[in-house]
Amino acid sequence: MKLSMHAMSVDVFTQTLGNLSGILEKAAATAAQRKFDAAVLLGARLAPDMLPLTRQVQIAGDIAKNSVARLARQEPPRFEDNETTIEQLRARIARTIDFLNSVPANALEGSETRDIKVPIGERTLEFKGLEFLRRWAIPNVFFHVTTAYDILRHNGVELGKRDFLNNGRDW
Amino acid sequence: MKLSMHAMSVDVFTQTLGNLSGILEKAAATAAQRKFDAAVLLGARLAPDMLPLTRQVQIAGDIAKNSVARLARQEPPRFEDNETTIEQLRARIARTIDFLNSVPANALEGSETRDIKVPIGERTLEFKGLEFLRRWAIPNVFFHVTTAYDILRHNGVELGKRDFLNNGRDW
Repeated sequence: MKLSMHAMSVDVFTQTLGNLSGILEKAAATAAQRKFDAAVLLGARLAPDMLPLTRQVQIAGDIAKNSVARLARQEPPRFEDNETTIEQLRARIARTIDFLNSVPANALEGSETRDIKVPIGERTLEFKGLEFLRRWAIPNVFFHVTTAYDILRHNGVELGKRDFLNNGRDW
Repeated sequence: MKLSMHAMSVDVFTQTLGNLSGILEKAAATAAQRKFDAAVLLGARLAPDMLPLTRQVQIAGDIAKNSVARLARQEPPRFEDNETTIEQLRARIARTIDFLNSVPANALEGSETRDIKVPIGERTLEFKGLEFLRRWAIPNVFFHVTTAYDILRHNGVELGKRDFLNNGRDW
């Protein structure tokens, strides 16, 4: 087990996105059990000017995918933002994890010193790879995964920290 | 700029805790401006069985502090959980950051393969240092910092992703 840019990006992101998929599965089960339309959850927000659950899930995966692609100097697959069901969102997460797992560890070797540019509106943020990973990619991915979790907890879906951390694995 | 256990723990945690402190400062300013008691925010939760803001802040810092101490084989400082104001919470964060910055990088060298034990109730989780960092410490710290942010956004404090990510720095 070695510390590497791959270990701190691909492995971190596939783990938390897998947990997110499990969390969404529980949300779907809750909707079925309580007989409400799961789409209500997909549109739920914590504040009127925060993004709803669907966007939180899409963005979490996109930042993981696009960040690893940038570090590896690859072109990431682009997904349309057209999911309308939890099942579709989970399929998108699965495709994202497939892409992440397709990036070979050696494509990320030396990426800590690569120049990374992130266009944000009219600005372009510039980082070295290590700063990009730890100040942008990792915080951003966890922000959106946690906010998805928080939206669901706020709406009464029974989840615990364990669902967020380890997807039922026994470490 | 080198990838290391120190770079992926101390630097990541001091960064996000510094941002959390800035977020709390904005919350205090909002309370003053709108003339409500900031203590209302400290007790706010996203669900009846989720922890309130004060605990989210305390736990975010404690997991950062205790995780780095475990990796470095040091005894972390213990803080009483007695904060009742935003100012006190920010002082606690400052003490936590001071401790994190006091851990020398060489104390974390080789920590990726160290055996780490985390007592959780009656169980003890066992990890190698790298797994502990990326599957426990990092997700956990970001979980609590994000949830603190989400609680404040849900309560109308004007914050943006920028406050979460970079504390006003221009990268």
